[in-house]
Amino acid sequence: MSRRVRSCQEWEVRASTFALKTTNPIRKIVENLQVEPNPEKEFIALSIGDPTTFGNLNPPEQVLQAVRDSIELHTSRGYGPSKGHNEARAAVAKYSAHQGDVDPEDVILTSGASHAIEMAITAIADSGQNILVPRPGFMIYQTLAEGLGITIKFYSLLPNEQWKVDLDDLEGQIDDDTAAIIVINPSNPCGSVYDKEHLIEILDIASRNRVPIIADEIYEHFVFSGHKFTPISAISEDVPVLTCSGLTKRFLVPGWRMGWLIIHDRNNILGKELRGALGNISTRILGPSTLIQRALPSILEYTPQSFFDDVLLFIENQAKLAYKELCMAPGLRPIMPQGAMYMMIEIKMQFFPEFKNECQFLEHLVAEQSVFCLPGQCFKYPNYLRIVLTVPEDKLQEACRRIIIFCKEHIVYAEKRLENMIN
Amino acid sequence: MSRRVRSCQEWEVRASTFALKTTNPIRKIVENLQVEPNPEKEFIALSIGDPTTFGNLNPPEQVLQAVRDSIELHTSRGYGPSKGHNEARAAVAKYSAHQGDVDPEDVILTSGASHAIEMAITAIADSGQNILVPRPGFMIYQTLAEGLGITIKFYSLLPNEQWKVDLDDLEGQIDDDTAAIIVINPSNPCGSVYDKEHLIEILDIASRNRVPIIADEIYEHFVFSGHKFTPISAISEDVPVLTCSGLTKRFLVPGWRMGWLIIHDRNNILGKELRGALGNISTRILGPSTLIQRALPSILEYTPQSFFDDVLLFIENQAKLAYKELCMAPGLRPIMPQGAMYMMIEIKMQFFPEFKNECQFLEHLVAEQSVFCLPGQCFKYPNYLRIVLTVPEDKLQEACRRIIIFCKEHIVYAEKRLENMIN
Ligand SMILES: Cc1ncc(COP(=O)(O)O)c(C=O)c1O
Ligand SMILES: Cc1ncc(COP(=O)(O)O)c(C=O)c1O
Repeated sequence: MSRRVRSCQEWEVRASTFALKTTNPIRKIVENLQVEPNPEKEFIALSIGDPTTFGNLNPPEQVLQAVRDSIELHTSRGYGPSKGHNEARAAVAKYSAHQGDVDPEDVILTSGASHAIEMAITAIADSGQNILVPRPGFMIYQTLAEGLGITIKFYSLLPNEQWKVDLDDLEGQIDDDTAAIIVINPSNPCGSVYDKEHLIEILDIASRNRVPIIADEIYEHFVFSGHKFTPISAISEDVPVLTCSGLTKRFLVPGWRMGWLIIHDRNNILGKELRGALGNISTRILGPSTLIQRALPSILEYTPQSFFDDVLLFIENQAKLAYKELCMAPGLRPIMPQGAMYMMIEIKMQFFPEFKNECQFLEHLVAEQSVFCLPGQCFKYPNYLRIVLTVPEDKLQEACRRIIIFCKEHIVYAEKRLENMIN
Repeated sequence: MSRRVRSCQEWEVRASTFALKTTNPIRKIVENLQVEPNPEKEFIALSIGDPTTFGNLNPPEQVLQAVRDSIELHTSRGYGPSKGHNEARAAVAKYSAHQGDVDPEDVILTSGASHAIEMAITAIADSGQNILVPRPGFMIYQTLAEGLGITIKFYSLLPNEQWKVDLDDLEGQIDDDTAAIIVINPSNPCGSVYDKEHLIEILDIASRNRVPIIADEIYEHFVFSGHKFTPISAISEDVPVLTCSGLTKRFLVPGWRMGWLIIHDRNNILGKELRGALGNISTRILGPSTLIQRALPSILEYTPQSFFDDVLLFIENQAKLAYKELCMAPGLRPIMPQGAMYMMIEIKMQFFPEFKNECQFLEHLVAEQSVFCLPGQCFKYPNYLRIVLTVPEDKLQEACRRIIIFCKEHIVYAEKRLENMIN
């Protein structure tokens, strides 16, 4: 028997490439920021994408009651099937009928939308392939893909056209190794909502180039008055769509980690291989807690429409408030969102010559005014800020007031800049 | 702008290598079995590793109450940190003090032990490397590793020495690409429990060869009278150990998906790189449901010892019952377990010449006696059966009775075989 004795060596345990390449860009950028609030002013965080943080938004009583009931069920404790309990999958299929024909077999329950996105990406893309991600966009796709050697390529959104997709850019980014296009609608961080016509333009490109779509619709139904939510799957004629959603945002229970993936398999293109692939992946860690799975049918059935309407009205009013206020902040250009729970704000950096970039702008904003929000770099989009609209109204109002003061104190108008240059 | 038009092509969406290589051997084997019970006899499944299936074993009231209380907490709904809430990590650290010094910083909360094992393997092993897995052994490591190009190599356990590790074989399997040794103690499927001396022998090999250990201790404390559970981390002097455990089995809530990984970083070998790696991976899908996380401190603190004692006594009595009965089944050799909730039974195949292998034996056992259990092949160990001991006593008794009848009906003794050959 060959005995390899490595005892002369020092102990050394290296991390895998997978782990080293699994990075969270937001975390990295925020960790490198100097965030030292002004001790004389209450700190206001407009950065947190968790609508429950401040306690002003709470899940409806029906949701809590469904889980209270679930605890008492003997069947809420045992293992579930790896794709989830049939009753829960059927409930999601019914709840998701607006997405097109959904059969319970098309539904896989997951640990939050993140897990659904992980399953979709890792089932469809191989190491060496790429997926197309919107810029600006939420960065979870990068965190999930790069560890597996899947490359992220960005396609541009157009800030002056309500963040519509730059279609030429999208199509130009597609190459022979493109495994999927990610579409986030409504969007984090933009708050944009695409109308049917625009979604058809995106689908046309996907269809022409035979690239399936991963639809991140965790903000489905989050659209302000005058806009309409169209699930991209509902209008796809031939493009296969994997839609990722869940309870997270709409039911205000992000910590419960209850999400799902829905397979929209137009013309049975995925059926051949991909359903099996998704099934395989679902056996890795099994699905979400059966305690929540057992509550899911009641949650989806009994939450009243008035709950959703109230939350949405609140967010829309907050968007209007922030927009109106920040229009008065010299050097900033807020872009009115159409849905979701965020707003992007352009910083016209030429008016703030003392700051190298939006991160420095933010560091000073925190240091002087104790207001924090995320820099555009977190979404691969410099010179912008993203604010979260779900904070309590008085905090949002006060934060806007302070941002305005900050801008007034730091803005340098052209004449002044010229003056500085001459004198 | 270059427009690649692939429209002439047919739609074809292939699954990734990762997905195709993520397979569940148990599922595959069972799907290929002909399991058609005898309609005249009640079906008894001794195959299900979920102790809650039959309703005879239930989580203690304290566990349910902790979750009832958690629902009412505002903080049980929002996102938690990706490694878990600090209070919950601290509670696990305290609960796991028998494993050696555990700091809350050493604990990462996961979606069941499966997710902890996934994190450990994917953080420590690169594509092209291998991990060593006991045979017979639970097959989740294969499901989790092979998709990432990590190879599984088996080391043998010794059925005639209470399933101790064949140390020569273990050391012989180690090569330059070995990233970790998996140790399952107490074992699924063997029910073996290793004493301190044996664990030291395993650690010596790991130490000499500089290979870290992944300890699957989901059955920690599941040991019958006369045996003692020793966590391998507690006696490791230099070998880094990643221990995977959770609520699953001991608290009888497998569906809740509440597990944890504990980093036992002897001499700060992992600190350099691997803690960061595990932290990275934890940001992929975030941890387990915060609803359960918030209940965890109470669950771990208030579950009375008498609950554990009662469950264990029941399982031990079941083991004794099954062992005593099955010793009377001609052609079978049950191996008395020392812990966990399983028993392995050797089928002396030469006494059953009509069956090609244990799978055929099982198919006939189901067809005639409506008793089902898992074939050894599910654990890479042919000619054995694994039965689960947590079924209700009367079912276990009846199942054993039927197995005995089946063996008596099918056994062919040597003289008879000889006779058949001569005539
Ligand atoms: C666009 C988008 N997708 C996915 C997620 C993750 O959702 P979950 O918490 O359900 O994993 C978020 C969370 O902020 C998001 O904004
Ligand atoms: C040895 C072993 N490890 C891990 C697991 C998985 O545990 P969990 O359900 O907590 O993911 C099991 C489940 O049967 C097991 O037997």
